[in-house]
Amino acid sequence: MPYIALPEGYPGIRSLAAYRPDTGAALYALAEALLRGDSALSQAEGELIATFTSSLNDCTFCASSHAAAARYLFATDQVLVDAVLADYQTAPISDKMKALLTIAKRVQQDARTVSEEVVEVARQQGATDREIHDTVLIAATFCMFNRYVDGLATLTPTDPAAYEPMGERMATLGYVPPKVER
Amino acid sequence: MPYIALPEGYPGIRSLAAYRPDTGAALYALAEALLRGDSALSQAEGELIATFTSSLNDCTFCASSHAAAARYLFATDQVLVDAVLADYQTAPISDKMKALLTIAKRVQQDARTVSEEVVEVARQQGATDREIHDTVLIAATFCMFNRYVDGLATLTPTDPAAYEPMGERMATLGYVPPKVER
Repeated sequence: MPYIALPEGYPGIRSLAAYRPDTGAALYALAEALLRGDSALSQAEGELIATFTSSLNDCTFCASSHAAAARYLFATDQVLVDAVLADYQTAPISDKMKALLTIAKRVQQDARTVSEEVVEVARQQGATDREIHDTVLIAATFCMFNRYVDGLATLTPTDPAAYEPMGERMATLGYVPPKVER
Repeated sequence: MPYIALPEGYPGIRSLAAYRPDTGAALYALAEALLRGDSALSQAEGELIATFTSSLNDCTFCASSHAAAARYLFATDQVLVDAVLADYQTAPISDKMKALLTIAKRVQQDARTVSEEVVEVARQQGATDREIHDTVLIAATFCMFNRYVDGLATLTPTDPAAYEPMGERMATLGYVPPKVER
């Protein structure tokens, strides 16, 4: 049960964007620019970082919905997302992506623990300034979304199948806030 | 030294908005809606929650700049902001604001620790749904800004006086991203 009276019929972040559309619009615009805009990372890579961060924060709604989006976008490689969530260091991803996920993990834990050393490891694997920047901002952004969704105890579907259409929608239509009749 | 090459002459979040203007615009729009838009909390109260959260995250740039904004907005009560940062439970603020800051602290630590109990304490002190919502979103948002600013080691002025004009600008003009010549 959410801690405040939210519009019914919307799960997670969508219930919050329906409750306060002005901040909702800014939040969805941020996700759209960051994950589908002029980014150095593909939407699939961005969704992978978003899923990884949300999983570290134990946010079931965000981890499940963005995992569904990442699985949809990595259509040819269905085991990739779950392998990253189980242990990203042994997952079938590039060494560059492993280095970027290490940076994301530091941002999630305490951003002051990001160091010259972990940034240098990413650079040695070919990461650009922009990829490092986008990784930090995606991890930071999902530390916000996770807290917003869980801090108000929003509706979190328990059936894994419920997340598949959410993932497909984000992968194909992008991050579009709910239309709410006022 | 920032970990990536950022436009020179801008501190903290401003250097990041100058580096990537599209996400910068969304982030500033979020702050403007949340802290100066149609909010249940005054901008002074919102800035106090932002400062408190940033202080818990040990983010010197955000804590110093938003403390300066809060001090400007609480012009008649100069000791209030520093008293909250020292110990909000004994600070000269309302019991409702103390209850909201307890919620913000839970959001900062781990949003899943926000409970029916702490929300009920806030309600007993008169907090509305909207005030509880806005408190959670402000705390979550600053957990993002703090991580973004510190995860890339942006320029953090060491002279406390450097933050005063930043605070006055936010308090009077709002959250306006830097104009960058492209």
